Formats: sequence, C-alpha cells, structure tokens
Amino acid sequence: MLHRERVIPPPGVYPADEWNLIETKFSPKFAEMSETIFALSNGYLGMRGCFEEGAPVVNDGTYINGFYEEWPIVYGEEAYGYAQTGQTIVNVTDSRIIKLYVDDEPFYLPRAHLLKFDRRLNMKTGTLDREILWETPAGKHVLIKSRRLVSLEHRHLAAISYEVTVLNAQAPVVLSSEMTADHSHAARADFDPRNPAARQGRILQPRRHYFDEQRAVLCHGTERSKMILGCAIDHELVTDCPFSSKTKCREDTGQVVFMIDAEPGQSIHLTKYMAYHTSATAPPQEICERVERTLDRAVSHGLPELYSSQERYLERFWRTSDLQISGIEEVRGLRTTTEIQQAIRFNLFHVLQASARAEGTGVPAKGLTGHAYEGHYFWDTEIYLLPFLIYTSPGIAKNILMFRYNMLEQARARAKTLSLKGALYPWRTISGEEASADYAAGTAQYHINADIMYALRKYVHATGDVEFLDHYGAEMLIETARSWASLGFFSDRKGGKFCINGVTGPDEYNTVVNNNTYTNLMARENLHYAADVLRTIQKERPKVFQTLTHRTGLEISEVDTWQRAADNMYIAYDEQLGIYPQDDSFLSKRRWDFENTPPEKYPLLLNYHPLTIYRHQVIKQADIVLAMFLLEHEFSLEEKKRNFAYYDPLTTGDSSLSSCIQAIVAAEIGEFDTALTYARVALLMDLADVGGNVKDGVHIASMGGCWMVMAYGFAGLRDHGGTLAFRPRQTPGHAAKLGFNLRWRGSLLHVKIAWDSACYTLVEGNELTLRHEDEEVRLTREKPSDTRPITRPAAG
Amino acid sequence: MLHRERVIPPPGVYPADEWNLIETKFSPKFAEMSETIFALSNGYLGMRGCFEEGAPVVNDGTYINGFYEEWPIVYGEEAYGYAQTGQTIVNVTDSRIIKLYVDDEPFYLPRAHLLKFDRRLNMKTGTLDREILWETPAGKHVLIKSRRLVSLEHRHLAAISYEVTVLNAQAPVVLSSEMTADHSHAARADFDPRNPAARQGRILQPRRHYFDEQRAVLCHGTERSKMILGCAIDHELVTDCPFSSKTKCREDTGQVVFMIDAEPGQSIHLTKYMAYHTSATAPPQEICERVERTLDRAVSHGLPELYSSQERYLERFWRTSDLQISGIEEVRGLRTTTEIQQAIRFNLFHVLQASARAEGTGVPAKGLTGHAYEGHYFWDTEIYLLPFLIYTSPGIAKNILMFRYNMLEQARARAKTLSLKGALYPWRTISGEEASADYAAGTAQYHINADIMYALRKYVHATGDVEFLDHYGAEMLIETARSWASLGFFSDRKGGKFCINGVTGPDEYNTVVNNNTYTNLMARENLHYAADVLRTIQKERPKVFQTLTHRTGLEISEVDTWQRAADNMYIAYDEQLGIYPQDDSFLSKRRWDFENTPPEKYPLLLNYHPLTIYRHQVIKQADIVLAMFLLEHEFSLEEKKRNFAYYDPLTTGDSSLSSCIQAIVAAEIGEFDTALTYARVALLMDLADVGGNVKDGVHIASMGGCWMVMAYGFAGLRDHGGTLAFRPRQTPGHAAKLGFNLRWRGSLLHVKIAWDSACYTLVEGNELTLRHEDEEVRLTREKPSDTRPITRPAAG
Repeated sequence: MLHRERVIPPPGVYPADEWNLIETKFSPKFAEMSETIFALSNGYLGMRGCFEEGAPVVNDGTYINGFYEEWPIVYGEEAYGYAQTGQTIVNVTDSRIIKLYVDDEPFYLPRAHLLKFDRRLNMKTGTLDREILWETPAGKHVLIKSRRLVSLEHRHLAAISYEVTVLNAQAPVVLSSEMTADHSHAARADFDPRNPAARQGRILQPRRHYFDEQRAVLCHGTERSKMILGCAIDHELVTDCPFSSKTKCREDTGQVVFMIDAEPGQSIHLTKYMAYHTSATAPPQEICERVERTLDRAVSHGLPELYSSQERYLERFWRTSDLQISGIEEVRGLRTTTEIQQAIRFNLFHVLQASARAEGTGVPAKGLTGHAYEGHYFWDTEIYLLPFLIYTSPGIAKNILMFRYNMLEQARARAKTLSLKGALYPWRTISGEEASADYAAGTAQYHINADIMYALRKYVHATGDVEFLDHYGAEMLIETARSWASLGFFSDRKGGKFCINGVTGPDEYNTVVNNNTYTNLMARENLHYAADVLRTIQKERPKVFQTLTHRTGLEISEVDTWQRAADNMYIAYDEQLGIYPQDDSFLSKRRWDFENTPPEKYPLLLNYHPLTIYRHQVIKQADIVLAMFLLEHEFSLEEKKRNFAYYDPLTTGDSSLSSCIQAIVAAEIGEFDTALTYARVALLMDLADVGGNVKDGVHIASMGGCWMVMAYGFAGLRDHGGTLAFRPRQTPGHAAKLGFNLRWRGSLLHVKIAWDSACYTLVEGNELTLRHEDEEVRLTREKPSDTRPITRPAAG
Repeated sequence: MLHRERVIPPPGVYPADEWNLIETKFSPKFAEMSETIFALSNGYLGMRGCFEEGAPVVNDGTYINGFYEEWPIVYGEEAYGYAQTGQTIVNVTDSRIIKLYVDDEPFYLPRAHLLKFDRRLNMKTGTLDREILWETPAGKHVLIKSRRLVSLEHRHLAAISYEVTVLNAQAPVVLSSEMTADHSHAARADFDPRNPAARQGRILQPRRHYFDEQRAVLCHGTERSKMILGCAIDHELVTDCPFSSKTKCREDTGQVVFMIDAEPGQSIHLTKYMAYHTSATAPPQEICERVERTLDRAVSHGLPELYSSQERYLERFWRTSDLQISGIEEVRGLRTTTEIQQAIRFNLFHVLQASARAEGTGVPAKGLTGHAYEGHYFWDTEIYLLPFLIYTSPGIAKNILMFRYNMLEQARARAKTLSLKGALYPWRTISGEEASADYAAGTAQYHINADIMYALRKYVHATGDVEFLDHYGAEMLIETARSWASLGFFSDRKGGKFCINGVTGPDEYNTVVNNNTYTNLMARENLHYAADVLRTIQKERPKVFQTLTHRTGLEISEVDTWQRAADNMYIAYDEQLGIYPQDDSFLSKRRWDFENTPPEKYPLLLNYHPLTIYRHQVIKQADIVLAMFLLEHEFSLEEKKRNFAYYDPLTTGDSSLSSCIQAIVAAEIGEFDTALTYARVALLMDLADVGGNVKDGVHIASMGGCWMVMAYGFAGLRDHGGTLAFRPRQTPGHAAKLGFNLRWRGSLLHVKIAWDSACYTLVEGNELTLRHEDEEVRLTREKPSDTRPITRPAAG
C-alpha cells in the first residue's frame, strides 16, 4: 500500500517528449537531481550531468565501475566473521570542465541572464545537448552549444563539443578546459562519512602527470586497494577567429587555456576528448600509454565518427529493446502516452548506460550516476535488471553472470567463515568480498545465492547457451546448492521437512528469521535446478561432468541430498488466513500502527530503532509478493489474491525495489487500479523523485523493474520451465497498445498487446514456439505473425 | 554441561589458607593474573596488584568507579536509535610506585635473586602484604616488607607502608616514590582498541600540578566527558639512617626521592599516603583542595589508625557476611575445607571491594580490578550481586538501587528512542546512557528492567524499607511496568495472551526472539509487583500516591492494564517435551553439533559468526534455568528436572554467569554431582582462571553467585513473596557444615546446615519467623535458636 504519496512530478521540469528528456530552464532547486538525471555513462565510465563550466556543482561525481578504495570497517562491537574490508567507489578525475569567460567575465549559470536555456538528454543520439543564449552584463549575446557523450562503442572514451558564438559584438573569449583529481573544493560525497578512514586524507594519490601540446595526462593510484587510474584530455579548436593556447599540468590538475579574439557571428568550436583507463595490476606508465592510445584513435577518427558510432549503437539497442506504448489517454492519474513513453525510454536508457560496458564488473545499485550504496553490486542486478538484459541484450547479461563466476573463490571463502559448505555470495561488494557491515540486513540475506542461480537459469533458458552452463554455470550451481544443503536441515519438529533458519528475506524489516518463505522457495529452485543440471550433464556430457567433479570434488550423493532437500523443503501455509506466512514468526507479530504513523516518519528505518521495526508486522519491500512473481507457477490465482490482500497493506514501499513487483502481481490478480498506481510509482521513481533521493543516483533496479511491469505485468510474459508463454492482462484503455521485442534462443520476437488481442511476430530467426494463454503458437518464416484474442475476466 | 573443562587450579600458586591468599614465589607466567587477584579496592578506588617497584607490570590499572571518558561510537552501518556515546573507564594516575635502588642497582623482581618471597592478600586486615628477602649481586641481603591498603573507611584514601632493611651491609639506598598519569609506557589497555577515538591522543589532560615538601599534587581532566581527577601523595620516612629527600612535580608526574645511607640492620620505613578525588562539576582548584584535605587527615591520624579502621570495617563485614564451611573431605574432585573456605572468602571479599563505597555509581562487571567491559554496569549487579548485599550489607544494596533511580531520566529518554513508554534501563552504561553498540545482544535485553525491579522487591522484602519504595522504588516500578505494557501486546493469534516479541533473554546465543520465556516471566513479576505496590500505596498512603501520580502522570487505568498483561502473560509450554521453550523458535532450531566442536572452539562467540550461532540450539548461559532459580515457585519439581535435563546439555557456559545458576538448580533437583561440579567452577572462576581471562579482572557476578550457590543452592534459601524460607539440600559429606548470616528486617539470623539438621539462631533483633521445609519456625530473644531435621529424598 502506498503509505506516503510523493509521486508528484516536479512541475515543468521535464516536458513530455518521446525521445528526449528536456530541461527548459535552469532551476537551482533541481540542480542536484538534474546532475543525476542527465548523467551519462556506458557502464564503465559514468559522469554526472554537471555543467561544463564547473559551476554550479553539487556533486561532481565521475565514476569508473569497480574502481574503489578500501578501508577497514570499524564496528561499535565486533564479532567473528564480520566483514572486514569496506569498499567505496571513488570519485575519479573530473575531466568535464570547460570554463568560459567573455570579456574576462566568467559564465556562471545562476547569475547569468539567459535568453534561452535548453538542455536535453537525447536518447537516440546518446548525447547530452545544450543550447544557451546568454546576454552578458555588457549586453553581448553569446550562443553556447554543447554536446557531451560517453561512448558506448569506445569504452574508455568521452567527448564534449563546445561551441561559442558571440552574436552581436567583438569580445575576448577564453575557454579553459580542465581536469582535476582534487575534489576538496566539492562536497566530499564520494566516501561514506561514517567511516573515519574515509574522512581523512586524499583518496587519489598522484603517480604521474605530463602534457604535450593540447593534451594533458594525469595518473593516480589508490593507497589501499592499489588501483591505478589514468585520465587524459586532448583538444581541437576550430574557428576563424585568432587565438592562442597554453597548457599546464600539475599533480592533480591539467589545463588547456584557449584565448580567442571573437568576432561577431564567428563560431568558436572546441572539441574535447577524455580518456580513462584503470587497472588493478598494470603500472602507471602502462596506463598512461593506454589513455594516450585511446586519445590518438579518437582524434584521428574525429568527432563525427564518434557521434555516428554512438547513434548506431543506440539504434541497435532500441531496435531490440524499445518498449512502445500508444493510445493511452489520461487514465486514473497516469500521464499521457508521450510522457509514459518518455519515462519508459528514460528508464531503459539508464539501464543500458549502467550495464552496456560493465565488462568484468557488476552493475552498481545507482549505476554510475551517484555514489550512494558506495558503488556496490547487490542481488537487484540479477532479479531486477537481468530479465530485461537477458531478453534484449543477452551479451551484457552474460558478462554480468560471468562476473559472478569470477568471484566464486571469494564466495567459497565467505561460506567457510559462515561455517557453510560451498559458496556464499556477498550481499554487497565491489571486489567480491563481503562489504556489508550489518549481518542482519546484509549477510543473512542468503537468498542472493538463489537469486543469482535464478537469473542463470533464465539466461540459459532464453539463450540456450549450454556452453556457459557447462563451463561456468554448473560450478556455481554446485557451490550454491552445497551452501543451502549445509545451511538448512531436516527437522524432526517439522515432520522431517528441510528447514532454513536464521535468514533474512528480501524484506529487511524482518531480519534473521526462520523459514522465510521467499528464501525457502528460491532455495528449492536453486537445489532442484542444480540437481537437474548436474544429472543432465552427467548423463549427456560426461566429460563436462568429469571436469566439474574434478574441480569441485562433487560426489553424486550430494546431488541426491539436494534433491531430497528440495523435495522436502518446508513451506509453511497458514490455514486460518489461507496465506503463506512470510516466515515462522511473522504472523504472530503485532501489526504496525500505520494509522498513527505520519507520512514524515517514512521511511521507517530512518525514524525507528530496528528493534521497534523488527517486532512488528511491517514490510519494507515485496517478499512473499516477490516470490509470487518470480515463482508464479507455485501459487494458485486464489492464493495470490489472498496473499496480496494480506501483505500489500503491510508493505511500506520504503525500498524502491517494491513498487514494480507489486504492480506486476496486482496486474496478474486483476487489481488493475492498484497495478496502475504501483506502475506509475515505479515508472516515475526517478523522474518524479519518489523517494526524494534521486540526487544520490538513479534507481537502476526499479528502472529494470519497469520493463518487467510491462512485459510480465501487462503483457503477461511467463517463462518458467524453459517455455515462453503469455497471458496478457488488461491495457489501460481500449486504444492502448504495448509493443516490445524479446530475444529467444537466437530469434527475435515482437509482441504487441492491444485491448482484446495479442500479436506475435517473428522478426529474426527461423521459427519460434510460444504459448498464448492455453494455446500453442508457432511462428515460422513462412507464417511469422499470429494474432490471438485475449480472454478477460469480467471487469472487476 | 561443561563443554570444556578448564578448572585446573594453577599448581602451587595459591596455597590453602583460610584468611589469606598467598603467593610464595614470583611467577612471570601468572603476573597479569596476579595483578587482578591481588587488586585492592573499596568500590570507589581500585588498584591492581602491581608491584610497588613499578616493574614488571602488565596492566598498571588504577580505576575510579564512574570516572570515564566518552567517545562517539562508530558503526560499520548505523541505524536510528543506536547508542551514540561510548564510555570507557579511565586508567587514572598511578600512585603506587616506590622504586628501590640499592647501590644504585634497581630492584627488579624478574632478575632479582630472592631468598624469600611472600605476598598475601589478608582478608581480615584488608591489606596486601609482602615480604621479600633479596640478595643483591653484591651479596647484600635486603629485607623488603610492604603493606598496601585501599581504605574501606576513608573512601578517597590509600596507603603503602614500605620498609627496607639492608641486613648485612652498609649501602646507599634510594626510594623513589612516584605517581604518573602518563600510561604511554604501559600497554594502553584502558581503551578499547576498536574505537578509533580511543587510539589517538592522551586521555588525561593536565590541569594543575604542584608540590610542597614531600607532597605532590596532580590534577587532570578528560576532554569529552569533562571530568576532573585529583591525585596526591604524601610521605613520612622514619629511619635512624641519615637521609635527604627531593621532590619534583611535572604535568603528568610527581616524584619524591629519598636518598638514605643505610646502616646494617637499620630499618628504613616509608609511609606513602595516596588520595584521589573526582568530580564532574567541581573545578580543578576545588579538587586539589579535597585531595590535600584527605592527605592532611591521613597524616595527622597516622598509619596505625588507618590499619585499625580497616580491620574494624572488615570485622564488621565478616561478622555479618562470612560464610563458613567445615568438615568437607575431598569429595568428587572438590578441594578440601580450607581451600573451599579460602575461595569463598576470596569471592566475598572481592564483592565487598567492588561495592563497599560505590556510592552514586554502579558496580562494574569486573569491579575495579580490570578494564574489561570498559568499567560498565550491567544487569548482573542486580541479579548476581544484590542478593548477597541485600542479606548482609543492605546499606550498600540501597546505594546501588538508588543509583538506578538516579538514571531514571536517561532511561525515560532511551525508552522514547525505542518507541516505548516509561523507561528502559541501558544494557551497559556508566553515565546512564546506553553504551551497547550491539542491539541484538545489548539493547534487546529489555529484561534488565525486570531484573532491577526483581532486586528492588527482594530489597524491600528483606529490609522492610517502605520509605525507599515510596520515594524511589514505586516510580521505577511505574516506568518499568509502562515499558512492558508498551513493548508487548495482547495477541489474537495466541488466544489473547500478552506476547513480547523481538527481545533477547539472558542467553546471548539466541537474540531478538519472540516470547523469551525468561523475559515474559520476569516481565510478569515486574507488572504484578508494580500493580500490587501501586494499589497498596493508593489505599494505604494516599499522599505518597498523589505525589507519584503528579510526578509520573500515572492513571489508574494503567495499573489495570499492567494487571491484565501480567495475568494474561504468554508462557509457552511444549507438551511434547514437557518443558518450557526458551522462546517461540528455540525448539525448532537445529541442535548445535557439540560432538564435532573441539574444545579450542569455545567460547563459540570467538569462533563462529553470530548467524551460525543464532540458528542453532545452543545456549551461552542459563536462561530458562535462571528463570527456574529466580522464580522457582513458578515451576514444579518435575518441570525443573525436565527443563534442566533439556537445557543443561545445550549450555556452553561461555559466560561466567552460568555455572553458579546451574549449580543452584542442579542442587534443587537433586543432581548433586552436577551441582558440585558447577559449584566448583563458580567458586574457582577466578582463582583457577576458568575462562582464561582473569588477567582482565575478576568475575564479580560469579563471585556474588557463589554466595547464592551456598545460601540458595545448598542451604535452600527461598524468599519469594516476602517470607524467609529454607529447604536445605544435601551437604557434601556427613561431617560437612555450612554456616552463614542473613539480615531480615532489622534482625540478624544465623543459619547452620549440617547433614541431617538445620539450626536457626536469632543473633540480633527481637523475633523472626521463617519457614523450614513446610514448618514455621519462630525465633525470639527468649528462644533464639531452633534446630530442625532435614528431610531428604532417597539417595539418588
């Protein structure tokens, strides 16, 4: 239930546009939020949407995915096995800055008299474009046109095109292009202030710096994590006006200053290339060479080629990944088609930005748009992001799963510390080591093991990538299944059922509980899938099996144990209420006094002691409801209805991971109003700043969740057990249409849902079989399209 | 069950003696332990048993009860309501030092050739006496006789008598009497190293220092807690040998050096007086005047008066408080009478030392013998110490309860933070503010509220001090009852019973559970007692009632609610096992694999992650078993047997609070072997260094528990409901006798338990009625003594 209604879009900030996110005036009030919204990223390099002019700036974050500093975690009271090493993404060298002076007066937005202001995130070109007409105090009209991109094609490259024209006068113009690794001038937002290690000393230690003509190179290292960062800038100035330039470079700063005698109407066009390289092993010299090579290539190819490669990349992306809405009128407070379309694309675009080139890393909870959650990777990658990526960009999905495989060694060590067999994935991490300093709402969320395996299965089913399964997936399955087998036990007091005690489910308002139903259900999936896969491999690919047993010491008796544990998994059911209890004790807790909790007391975790929260029936985010989505085949429709009716009013939505899931389940059970309400919250999580914290970064999980709301919630996609099936739900309005693509085992399917019919079209590939409601639909090259009627329950 | 047997007394360290604890050789191996064992204290000022000569020293702790520095607690991950201010007892100015040089060679114990070494804690004189005969490298025989005391009578005063005689030669002798506030030379053991605030900078900031003749005064302050400490020393040297002296004083050190030309056989007798004053409000000047006044008085009265006042104090103490054992032969590994008697007195003596002059403070878990637990006060004061003090030194008991009353304001604020009504006492504190940085094993132990009220009732019943109840106790009862009423709720799912969820009982291996039976039972007592007292006051002392309602806003409907909550308290009972479950989920957990847990893995908390411990049936310390002792009238004998049989094997005894309780209950249910085993562990907790951590301070709770083992366990004292009753248990052997005194409403009763009879004697007072087994015994001045036969069950 929405216990606090904050979904009021900031008025006039972002006018409706299908492909652009537009800002038509400079609002200091929304400056920090806009820095997030207009952030550019390719999943490796992220730059917040700060202005080139270097001011005003609230949080000048520039991030490299996986580039972190570490620090010893200090506990008020320590205990055995607590995570030892904190990891925090570093605010790296800021290379965006191009300061502009006209008549030696700086261009400073908050005080500038603007005749025009237009900033737009163009989701087709993948650029952040700005056009400003500034009237200087001397009455000179200065037209500033800038375009910024972080290249999706060239992982280490970003560029800015900055064009200045003094329209009506002569004027001395200075462009000072800078980069700085010294963030002491800005709010030190890159490190969690709770950690004393964070507060003292500089994070980036200078290693090398030099310049050559209009190129400057800075190289820094971190003290504890021993990582190396190289950042370099290069420039081209094109103008008919006379100019000179001067380059400087110090330990922490690089600067190329262009002094131009501007003539009226003559454009001055500066191109700035920025290159970033990082490494945990290569020496500074090597990193400097890499950034220089990236710059060399950029300069030689030129800006137009960079633009067009960006557009091509996005064209490919949207061709597969776009999700189109049409025909929606103002329905129950939901915004119009254009605005909805814009929000959908904005969400998908940011998911792409967060993940595209996240090669060898995970996807931080905020992507690379802010430092919140310290740049850590959580379970939401697998549960909220991967479905979209698996079905539209399986290559990216594979990279992310591969990253989990690569941290298996650390996960094995962590399991050992927890007295478990197999492997236990860290609740939050960058390096692969557990970085959660709160075991109750962190390490105890063992379900992350099952979540990753859930995503693995979805990936294998959708792609048919058995090779990945054999080489990497199966080993992860073995180790996660082992962890469950050792975590739980066959309980005499529960009729010999397999019980899992002392865990925390997705709902962090009920921690360290026994038999969290979500966890038990997901563990069962994990165990069943592991047993199935291992038996199949043993039978069908004995060589692979031999390698696996050799590598993991697997004995076949273990597989039998997994099977037995899965078959006998304890899943409680409350006959009295006809629902699944969230855990053994949940239903016996006192109901939270929602009636006497004023809106400003949400989120509860910031206003109540954990002990107060933990002893009540109150839910932070979908838990049983999430299980009903992920494992929808395990619940009857009536059960879903009863469970939703019970749990939804208890759910605060204090986590941004909640609304999208509640929307999907509400749609499935026919609570269409509720579904629309939640969908709206999920869709506008960032654009309407629902949680009031967009300034700290976008909510990547909710963004991925939006796609799920459309595909699973409204189009009724169901993919359990390796078949592709649809049971479309109601669209909002008779004229409403919803279209999107899915990749399935090499084919590309287009799905179009209308009021009373669903149309399935094979776009690529030879054939594809799917289920529509209870019918099989077979698409072939000969008959690539099939339209089926949608059966609806009587309107509720 | 004793899962690790470490009860092996260090051989030869402490020979048997009824009134002394004796060390006959210097053993570096036991040096740190001996510093603890030989510590002197009066409950205000404590000095570890380091040698006067200043070396060797492992932990030179000197402590003033309640003199602490504070620091901000840093959390790996913080949440609302977490304790903010850490408090740590300060290692204050060390004034013990008297360095001895003969022929300019320092006397350094580890390298000295000793012809005699005798150090003894004399529990009759209350002094630490030492006699050493040292042969210098030059063959000179130096007799050193020292005596140290921390005055029980004069709260701020300590003294050392140091006598040196060179027996067989002339020699230049130097005595350098020193004091120092600079502990940088020693292991910085005074601050918890986990706290970064602790590691940097000095704790004691100099405020004043000066000297006058052979007196030196140092005054220091703490930076954050703003407390002031004054320490001063003064001297008298008596000798026929020629000597001169020189006094120095710096910011952190004071020094008076005596240079003596010793003649053979001529004694040199130095008396050193040490005075300490502290304040949270008075300025340095004032504190300096106070220490000087204390010294003035000491010097004018002289040392003999100090000795005799100490002896008189102890004579009074032992007259009431001694517990005599006789006639025990070697029984089942238990030591002989003398050794047992010694251990008993040692324990009682240390309880006295910890509490005697703890006026306006609590009693730290280690007394003032070490810095472990940071000098904090816990629930063990009320549950483990107060019974002994209530029955033997009710004045001390009253001071301690008064201290709880004085922190009621902070406890009210804490309750508010926890969203509770009334007051919540801090789990650990010095200042009154919660200092526990771990809510699960800390703040969640709400039972401390009921524990304090349990002690209050025992105090009121034993003393009849209704005035204390009216003025202080009732207000605490109101606020604690309110806390329970708001913490729990009437649960429909438990038949309308009053349930208390999200708590931790005494057993810290099962945290944040629902309906911990100990907690529910104790809360019920708290609620019932509050309702009874308030109704009685309303009826019988309406003016007092009026004051109370005025002060607390009490409404009579609240009292009805308490009554209803108490009457309907949920107490689970497991029909299948015939036992009370420790909490709602305990019995459904997996049993700890004790069989595969090697001894070195105990205590478990140092070797397993909390999550591993929490999900198992494993107990740190008596929980249900403690409830069966404290509320023994709530359980039938058969229930006690079944519960003990179930819980005892699961109890690791990883806490020193466990053995004494297990001994008492084992004695009650007739498991005499088990009772003796546990009694031995409790009795020798410190002397045999059972936990291997005596170096960090004595286990005051277990020491108080020893008295309970004798009085409640073996003599069968029962005092529930305001009547004094005895149901004596078996003594160890036919000739064994156990005697002790109890104060009861102004009278003094002597109890003597033999094999087959109990003798009750009225020592002071006019009359006293008690129950022996099921009979009433009335003692009067005319017939002050009565002997009754003991009914025994058939030998098991």
